[in-house]
Amino acid sequence: MFWTKTLIPTMKETPEGAEIPSHILMLRAGLISQVMAGAYTYLPLGYRSLRKAENIVREEMDCAGAVELHMSAMAPLSLYEQTNRVEAFGNVLIKTDLARGGKKVPVVFCPTHEETITDIVSRYVSSYRQLPMTFYQIQTKFRNEERPRFGVLRTSEFLMKDAYSFNPTLESLNESYSAMYQAYCKIFTRCGVPFLPVEAESGPIGGDASHEFMFPSANGEDKVVHCSCGYAANTEKAGIGMDNIRQPKIEPLPIQETATPGAHTIEQVCEFLKCEPQRLIKTLIYLADSKPVAVLVRGDHDANENKIRKTLQVNKVELADPVTIERVTGAPVGFAGPVGLKEKLTILADFAVQPLVNVVTGANKDETHLLNVNPGRDFTADLFADLRNAQANDPCPRCSGGTLQISNAIEGGHVFKLGTKYSQALNAKFLDTDETQKTMIMGCYGIGINRILVGICETSYDESGIIWPVPLAPYEAVITPLKIDDEPTMNAAKELYRQLNNAGIDCLLDDRDQRPGVKFKDADLIGFPMRIVLGPKGLAQNEAEIKWRWDKDPIMIPLSNAAAQIAAVLHEERKTNKLFLKQKKGT
Amino acid sequence: MFWTKTLIPTMKETPEGAEIPSHILMLRAGLISQVMAGAYTYLPLGYRSLRKAENIVREEMDCAGAVELHMSAMAPLSLYEQTNRVEAFGNVLIKTDLARGGKKVPVVFCPTHEETITDIVSRYVSSYRQLPMTFYQIQTKFRNEERPRFGVLRTSEFLMKDAYSFNPTLESLNESYSAMYQAYCKIFTRCGVPFLPVEAESGPIGGDASHEFMFPSANGEDKVVHCSCGYAANTEKAGIGMDNIRQPKIEPLPIQETATPGAHTIEQVCEFLKCEPQRLIKTLIYLADSKPVAVLVRGDHDANENKIRKTLQVNKVELADPVTIERVTGAPVGFAGPVGLKEKLTILADFAVQPLVNVVTGANKDETHLLNVNPGRDFTADLFADLRNAQANDPCPRCSGGTLQISNAIEGGHVFKLGTKYSQALNAKFLDTDETQKTMIMGCYGIGINRILVGICETSYDESGIIWPVPLAPYEAVITPLKIDDEPTMNAAKELYRQLNNAGIDCLLDDRDQRPGVKFKDADLIGFPMRIVLGPKGLAQNEAEIKWRWDKDPIMIPLSNAAAQIAAVLHEERKTNKLFLKQKKGT
Repeated sequence: MFWTKTLIPTMKETPEGAEIPSHILMLRAGLISQVMAGAYTYLPLGYRSLRKAENIVREEMDCAGAVELHMSAMAPLSLYEQTNRVEAFGNVLIKTDLARGGKKVPVVFCPTHEETITDIVSRYVSSYRQLPMTFYQIQTKFRNEERPRFGVLRTSEFLMKDAYSFNPTLESLNESYSAMYQAYCKIFTRCGVPFLPVEAESGPIGGDASHEFMFPSANGEDKVVHCSCGYAANTEKAGIGMDNIRQPKIEPLPIQETATPGAHTIEQVCEFLKCEPQRLIKTLIYLADSKPVAVLVRGDHDANENKIRKTLQVNKVELADPVTIERVTGAPVGFAGPVGLKEKLTILADFAVQPLVNVVTGANKDETHLLNVNPGRDFTADLFADLRNAQANDPCPRCSGGTLQISNAIEGGHVFKLGTKYSQALNAKFLDTDETQKTMIMGCYGIGINRILVGICETSYDESGIIWPVPLAPYEAVITPLKIDDEPTMNAAKELYRQLNNAGIDCLLDDRDQRPGVKFKDADLIGFPMRIVLGPKGLAQNEAEIKWRWDKDPIMIPLSNAAAQIAAVLHEERKTNKLFLKQKKGT
Repeated sequence: MFWTKTLIPTMKETPEGAEIPSHILMLRAGLISQVMAGAYTYLPLGYRSLRKAENIVREEMDCAGAVELHMSAMAPLSLYEQTNRVEAFGNVLIKTDLARGGKKVPVVFCPTHEETITDIVSRYVSSYRQLPMTFYQIQTKFRNEERPRFGVLRTSEFLMKDAYSFNPTLESLNESYSAMYQAYCKIFTRCGVPFLPVEAESGPIGGDASHEFMFPSANGEDKVVHCSCGYAANTEKAGIGMDNIRQPKIEPLPIQETATPGAHTIEQVCEFLKCEPQRLIKTLIYLADSKPVAVLVRGDHDANENKIRKTLQVNKVELADPVTIERVTGAPVGFAGPVGLKEKLTILADFAVQPLVNVVTGANKDETHLLNVNPGRDFTADLFADLRNAQANDPCPRCSGGTLQISNAIEGGHVFKLGTKYSQALNAKFLDTDETQKTMIMGCYGIGINRILVGICETSYDESGIIWPVPLAPYEAVITPLKIDDEPTMNAAKELYRQLNNAGIDCLLDDRDQRPGVKFKDADLIGFPMRIVLGPKGLAQNEAEIKWRWDKDPIMIPLSNAAAQIAAVLHEERKTNKLFLKQKKGT
């Protein structure tokens, strides 16, 4: 492609409203353009990168044995009612009515396609002989974003690869899951985006078999908890190792009641009593399947509802309402404590509460706290367990001696064992080898293809612009003739362009009537992996100048052999990302 | 691909509700599956064909210099209000409100993207140096269909290639238009779908420079008027040659009034008076830019509003309401005539009215007609012109002596000179060489990619099933081992499969545990261009049996060289469609 024949609207300034590097750089490099909040056009260069990511995803899906199809973007609302997802999605689901000959037909614009695919499979698959099957599609998905932001990171329509496996047994599900997990690793590796598969909360199938594929990134909206030993999980899931450090031996003091007027929150109590939050016990009243329970965590810790739910083996855990709190504690919200609860409640306490000595708790009395409370002496917990979110420097739950770190990340993919939720609701059954009807077991597997680009642009840039890995670069090389009105220069540029194209290299010829400085700046901003400069001086010596985007200095190579040499290194780099990764390590 | 590893739900019976061959065959061959009225899933085989069509379109667009991008499917409703298309599209436009932090944001799901692309171009293109540019995208479009039907022919979402050119001058527009026209011819030729570029009504730019690309097909919903000389137009546009045949010399008889109680329509009058419709003059009262005019056509002809509009040089022509008709004729609807109109009106008459002698017209009087009316004697037309739709056997407007034929067809593509409608409304201007601001001139160019498949399936089938041309076939060849439990047979099949894949041939191995008859039936129903049969008998002689889908008889070829031989003919056929077209001509 010649630069003047396409549209590359680069910008010098940071566009208004763009905050994070990927958003700023993708706009400045002319990759995307906003249509409205939450909806973007991929301009020619941006779309080239998106399609390259899409093709890598497709190749690896095919390679993993998944079969591509394409479902309609719309589906009848009734299908989502059958699985209770209209309510579950709430505002996220985009709905409308089609006008059909005077009748209104309610439809949804699918946010994912569990319903449609399960309906298809229930129609056409009926025997164990046809299983397992994994289907995938690459398609625009629609989800209302209350607050769309950060460019193409969080939009109301986005390109998604969604796959669904249908399995006759749990072992078969594990195989399909594992094939997808491996394919994801290959995809992100080929794309050159740094990724971390983290354990995520799993569905009804249990185990640790749900993984999110996270792109570590300072501006990611998610948190990843990880240890140098390789353990990684999201905050919802991350376990905490048993801490061996005990409190220093302190003599228990007599319990004492103190007035704390106006101090309702941990911060206010600490301020009022001049103590650190870790010297407090936070007492939270939850409804576990509607039954009130008290949960104790240290004042500087956050309770993890998911861990509470699993510890109690209930379906639903939610914070109790003020009326219930007042009823069971005898005091308004903010003064609950484990000593002297009005009603007899199950008391769960986090492991970190156990060693505490002489700490502060609510007194179950308005505007009052207790000092010198001691677990065991003043109250008895029914169970000590891991009930809180991991924090930085918490002990690793897997290795001995490791400490957890917390990083921001972007969720790029998710593999999930669904179980029979959808197959049950939509009657996807099969006749098994034993001639009985069984419900298929499902897995679902998603990748946000746009987010692969965001992942690159958030993690691979410098002060001049984006640094693309070869496999996703809009063009692998840019040829920059220094003087477009110098005929020998332009002829050499066009000849090299022709040769590189013939050698299967994706290149752009910057034929603009601009100063070299402008061209170099734009090339760096967009981030083509290789820049090839041709000018009268070099030509006089039969030389071309080549420079990797990530290298400081160019090198001169003989023009006679330039195309072959460039094609060889680019083909190699396209396969391996070797130089790209090496420079990233170096920084 | 192995048959058992994908999903090919073929059906023996004609599915309920499917009427036309393409719908029946695409369902029976397991290419598509209905999600709801007007929305289909492309099952694995159908999606392969769709993607092949998509790729041919993409290659030819790139080749024609068009630049690919990808606009969002959603756009703010306000953008469509700026071009008055919310009203113009009416029920066809699919709209909804996004919920954004308590606010409602009205959006449309774009039926086409003139607004979005013009908005983009107005932002980034400002100089003649950046023009001309043609952008395209391949994307799902959304249009409410009041009565979706005929499978994927008429649906509420469909895959469209839409392109838009932005030109500084009319000459430049003509060049872009011509490049697209040529690209369309190449696309449909490569796809193997029979097509006819027909003149269509053009926009404000005028001339005969709007073309529809029609796929002639007995079940097409559109009509194409064509002559053996090559002239082709849609009914809206088709001209009619001057007919030299005059009425036989008949003596004019005296005009005479006759009561025609209850006879309001042409049919009723003919029945009542026992005469042929060509012995009547139909008098239609139109509002031409709100002003009433009388239009006369022969009783067996249909008035063409478009021709009336152009003849009168007005913007809008519509049939008058009953109140207006009664006011200007003096009679209720059904009795208008050119003699004795109550108000003085402009009278336009079709050329075919001029030679009529002693014909019947309405009397402008309730339940009454006039007999023996003679143009020129009893009334004077202000203008004779071509004002009607062409009919079969009408004289060709281009050649001498040719007669027009009318065929049904499917609209597969459209190229259109838009002019400045959108660029004006959305302020897409550029600084021209003379340093003045000018409005860009636009063209738009669409292809319904799904319809290419429909075009094939409507025109290329026999009693056994679809007959795919190689370039669009879901798989180019199917390998059918006669006995899957015979190890040498399966080994040979797998080896051939491997060799063909390596040679770049897209093939399917039918590894189902089914009788050969079942396999052959399915292969014919789906319509793979080449079937390769391997069985113990042939293997004993080191032979494979190959058969083109369109040939009656198979031939035996040496197994040793089979892959190379098959790959060579399929590669050739993929490029040329030569054998496919030859057999079609033969039938």
